Amino acid sequence: MTKKNFFLSRVYGLLEPGPVVLVTTARKGRANVMTMSWHTMIEFEPPLVGCVISDWNYTFGLLKATRECVINIPTMELAKKVVGCGNTSGAKVDKFERFRLTPAAASRVKAPLIEECYANLECRVVDTRMVSKYCLFVLEVLKAWIDPAVKNPRTIHHLGKGHFMVAGRRFKLPSKMK
Amino acid sequence: MTKKNFFLSRVYGLLEPGPVVLVTTARKGRANVMTMSWHTMIEFEPPLVGCVISDWNYTFGLLKATRECVINIPTMELAKKVVGCGNTSGAKVDKFERFRLTPAAASRVKAPLIEECYANLECRVVDTRMVSKYCLFVLEVLKAWIDPAVKNPRTIHHLGKGHFMVAGRRFKLPSKMK
Repeated sequence: MTKKNFFLSRVYGLLEPGPVVLVTTARKGRANVMTMSWHTMIEFEPPLVGCVISDWNYTFGLLKATRECVINIPTMELAKKVVGCGNTSGAKVDKFERFRLTPAAASRVKAPLIEECYANLECRVVDTRMVSKYCLFVLEVLKAWIDPAVKNPRTIHHLGKGHFMVAGRRFKLPSKMK
Repeated sequence: MTKKNFFLSRVYGLLEPGPVVLVTTARKGRANVMTMSWHTMIEFEPPLVGCVISDWNYTFGLLKATRECVINIPTMELAKKVVGCGNTSGAKVDKFERFRLTPAAASRVKAPLIEECYANLECRVVDTRMVSKYCLFVLEVLKAWIDPAVKNPRTIHHLGKGHFMVAGRRFKLPSKMK
């Protein structure tokens, strides 16, 4: 894998623009992937992420049991696989095999990184108080990886019912914001 | 105002792609605006939104006291004003005046809509249990407005430190997702 370590203090810039992500989990030697876009940064450093994973997703039980996952950020090239993962359930299908996604070993968690994604965030569940009411997990990012070759990632953003937009052109304005 | 009612069941499609938004609050006849991009959908209908508003923001106190706000969604044309609102504090500046934003009366809350934004979501705070630890408010969208003339809103997405991307081209794939 040609990915490099990415500073934890900069992780917010990857998730804040709202990309669709692929969440990987693993249990008893079997890995799963789900498509997700209900997430928000909660804290800069250590990076905390809030994410909503419905209890009718196969991932819900895996995440609750193992308290570990990886948030993988795909780009436009993977759009069909991303939607495919959203249309199928890990209870029935090995999605790594079905969608030809390549698992790679993570360093801090048992869930795999997806090689094809340009960034991977290894996470641990740190707060489950909002799970029973909202299916909202608070995750801490323990380790982040990025492909340094991807300069302007064309992330995918869900608009509902299969409609998406791709990250467009970039601009900069003088800002005091982090 | 030429905006129309927007179905609450479709609100998720506005926030899910991760746009920077302007949050308006009002107290004792004075309104404020802040720039925010740490938010996520939590439930489809009634639409619940989780948003992180740091306690060093002037809006934090206003939202805690009034338990009401409006989430206004700006597009590219407003980028300078959006960043301007992020660079200043409502404790010192009347941002509606400074940035020439037009307040309009909301129907369910006292906080104003921003006319220049293509969509406005009138919200009430419904859960504050995560406020002390994470500054995370759970909001319920009570009423939503949209400008029907805006077909492909060029929303703004924050990448950190004044870098942004604009919503790019759209595509559709067969999806079972809502």
